[in-house]
Amino acid sequence: MYECSKQRMTDKIKTFSKFGDAGHGGITRYSLSPEDIMARKEFIKRMTAIGCEIKSDDMANLYATLKGTDPSLPAIVMASHCDSVKNGGNYDGILGVMGAMEVLETVATEGIEHKHNLVAMIWTNEEGSLYPPAMMSSGVVCNDYLPADIAQNFKKEDMLASRSILDPSMNFGMALDASGYKGDQSNRLNPKDYKAMFELHIEQGPILENDNKDIGVVTCVLGMINYRIKITGQADHAGTTPMQYRKDALFAAAQVLLYLHTELDKLDPELVYTTGEILCHPNVHTVIPDFIEFSIDARHEDPKVIEQVVEVIRNMPKEFAKCSVDYEVAWTRDTVYYDKQLVDFVQESADELGYSNRKINSGAGHDAQFASYMLPTTMVFVPSKDGHSHCEPEYTSPELCTKGASVLLNAVLKCDKAD
Amino acid sequence: MYECSKQRMTDKIKTFSKFGDAGHGGITRYSLSPEDIMARKEFIKRMTAIGCEIKSDDMANLYATLKGTDPSLPAIVMASHCDSVKNGGNYDGILGVMGAMEVLETVATEGIEHKHNLVAMIWTNEEGSLYPPAMMSSGVVCNDYLPADIAQNFKKEDMLASRSILDPSMNFGMALDASGYKGDQSNRLNPKDYKAMFELHIEQGPILENDNKDIGVVTCVLGMINYRIKITGQADHAGTTPMQYRKDALFAAAQVLLYLHTELDKLDPELVYTTGEILCHPNVHTVIPDFIEFSIDARHEDPKVIEQVVEVIRNMPKEFAKCSVDYEVAWTRDTVYYDKQLVDFVQESADELGYSNRKINSGAGHDAQFASYMLPTTMVFVPSKDGHSHCEPEYTSPELCTKGASVLLNAVLKCDKAD
Repeated sequence: MYECSKQRMTDKIKTFSKFGDAGHGGITRYSLSPEDIMARKEFIKRMTAIGCEIKSDDMANLYATLKGTDPSLPAIVMASHCDSVKNGGNYDGILGVMGAMEVLETVATEGIEHKHNLVAMIWTNEEGSLYPPAMMSSGVVCNDYLPADIAQNFKKEDMLASRSILDPSMNFGMALDASGYKGDQSNRLNPKDYKAMFELHIEQGPILENDNKDIGVVTCVLGMINYRIKITGQADHAGTTPMQYRKDALFAAAQVLLYLHTELDKLDPELVYTTGEILCHPNVHTVIPDFIEFSIDARHEDPKVIEQVVEVIRNMPKEFAKCSVDYEVAWTRDTVYYDKQLVDFVQESADELGYSNRKINSGAGHDAQFASYMLPTTMVFVPSKDGHSHCEPEYTSPELCTKGASVLLNAVLKCDKAD
Repeated sequence: MYECSKQRMTDKIKTFSKFGDAGHGGITRYSLSPEDIMARKEFIKRMTAIGCEIKSDDMANLYATLKGTDPSLPAIVMASHCDSVKNGGNYDGILGVMGAMEVLETVATEGIEHKHNLVAMIWTNEEGSLYPPAMMSSGVVCNDYLPADIAQNFKKEDMLASRSILDPSMNFGMALDASGYKGDQSNRLNPKDYKAMFELHIEQGPILENDNKDIGVVTCVLGMINYRIKITGQADHAGTTPMQYRKDALFAAAQVLLYLHTELDKLDPELVYTTGEILCHPNVHTVIPDFIEFSIDARHEDPKVIEQVVEVIRNMPKEFAKCSVDYEVAWTRDTVYYDKQLVDFVQESADELGYSNRKINSGAGHDAQFASYMLPTTMVFVPSKDGHSHCEPEYTSPELCTKGASVLLNAVLKCDKAD
């Protein structure tokens, strides 16, 4: 078994955390921003130093290739992203890039033999924080392999037209042209030239930490269903309408929310559901709300549990507090299972290294999820302190980051030998 | 007793409902918009035809004066507004202007003698729909007489700088300059040249209709208190955070809403309270909300009941669903009582005309509320069908509109004789 260098990993964490440092322990590093370009330059500098060949594709996805003994074989790629959300942390995304770099550095430094080309890759604009949507480039690159309802949301021409949320005069295509990283479409990740993709990532939840495990062997991306719940009341004046005549859509929405919590809490305890977005009309403090819409996002590996969620929504009363309640499905996703052989490589590597580990599923979306429709793919998770992510307190110790890279390294080497 | 003309009132309703007709039975007529200018021109045409003198002040408030037999006496003014909210109705505001016109037309046509000058007046921008805030011009004109905490929100220079909600390159001062209705500051309503102000208005609530009364004798504007309730949780990923680790601020907010309803419903049944505005952060369907803020607006005539509301808020638990709950007072208003003598004139007029009537308070703000700090003021209400207002179904029959004008006429004549 090989192990990566904690010292080298610590240096990378320290260095990359500077690019977009927002002054409170975290970063803001939008894709293709000056801060992102700094991170890309550092990636190229370090990968060139160990003899990698650098190329990029038409979405500015960046590939650093370390030649194997038989370059005619399809390559094994380790990929993640280096962009962040606004005031995000130093680990989401970039850890997978640093882990891939660390693997190649270990292979190069220790002269570990490998037949296949090994590639460290940066996906462009995974967060979609400045130019929505999230997982933009994997959505484009894997488009032909995605289910039709997902694929249609990631057409390249639409992505190029995506406007900056900060400057409506800018779009993603303009940012791409200006970046200096736009390459050729023929350089894209594809199932002919690539054998497998691995992604190392922080868990973004508290399960590993609470279960005292160092490594998460990711088996699937949870199936999910997304509803919009709509409540219609009657707008009237706050000062002139006696309470008994009101049809207050927000009061009704509060009851619907509690009803859904009560009913959904009766289902499998591993079900997660979230009401993250709420819209209120007219949303004026002197007017009784006549319309509320809120989202509900429910995720579980087992489609039977998702079906129970569907039943709960379907059986929800049509009236709360004299307001009518309606719903529509916004979108659904079936559970996506990662490649069984690759999952086993991760499991065996963690076990052989003697790292505590457990099977875990991914509730969040990752580029690996889209890639898995195109070629064998899997993921490795390391713990997130207190379960936090997409925020500045996001933290994983250098030791755990290095353990994640070591598992990645050994799993890739098992894949290299598996022909 | 004199009675106004239902035929003439019907014609006015029909005519004014064209200016800004939004095609669904209601109007959109922002202050100083082309539609508002049409309404002002019609007002001037009709008032000039009966011998009124027209003038405007520096806020484009418009005055049509019918000379009395002793013009040295202070004038009696009947005022309301002709602007509307977006997709508002054909009665809110404009009824008070049509009622004032109808009174002057009746006086002029029937040659009713009066000592004091009688004035029909249009307040500019009562709704504040395009250029906030509401009650802008009465706030400016009555500024020296308003309580300091209210007055500071209506400084003229701030009002002129108020930006259009549709076109940020426009402000209210520019609209005022372009309107052709900006006159001299010396023409403003003031307590030296004016003896009293009356405002006829729709009730904007269901009380008169449900009590089968034609006329509301308004006695006061309800005292109110406005809170912002703030709930702080923890933002985490919707897909990766098990339910038991969540601090979901929206789930907590739903519980706080129901708690407040339960506690406030134990107080006086005439208390009205409204949670009209809710803000959610980050308001993304895949993120557990970490912060919710909602407004609560509570109104009652009796300050003791408002004090009980304060107690309920003060005693509210500081934690719901593992989220912390805090509050702050946004603003308060003491109950404003209308002038007792003028209220009596309205009451006597309705009684003598044989119109069913009852005492009622005003929960909504009106220009009359600000005027009442400066000179004796009162209001007359007529029923709102189904209690609706600020919406296209807003309706009051021509008969009831005419009854309102007749009460206004006789109350004004009582005021005229009361020296």
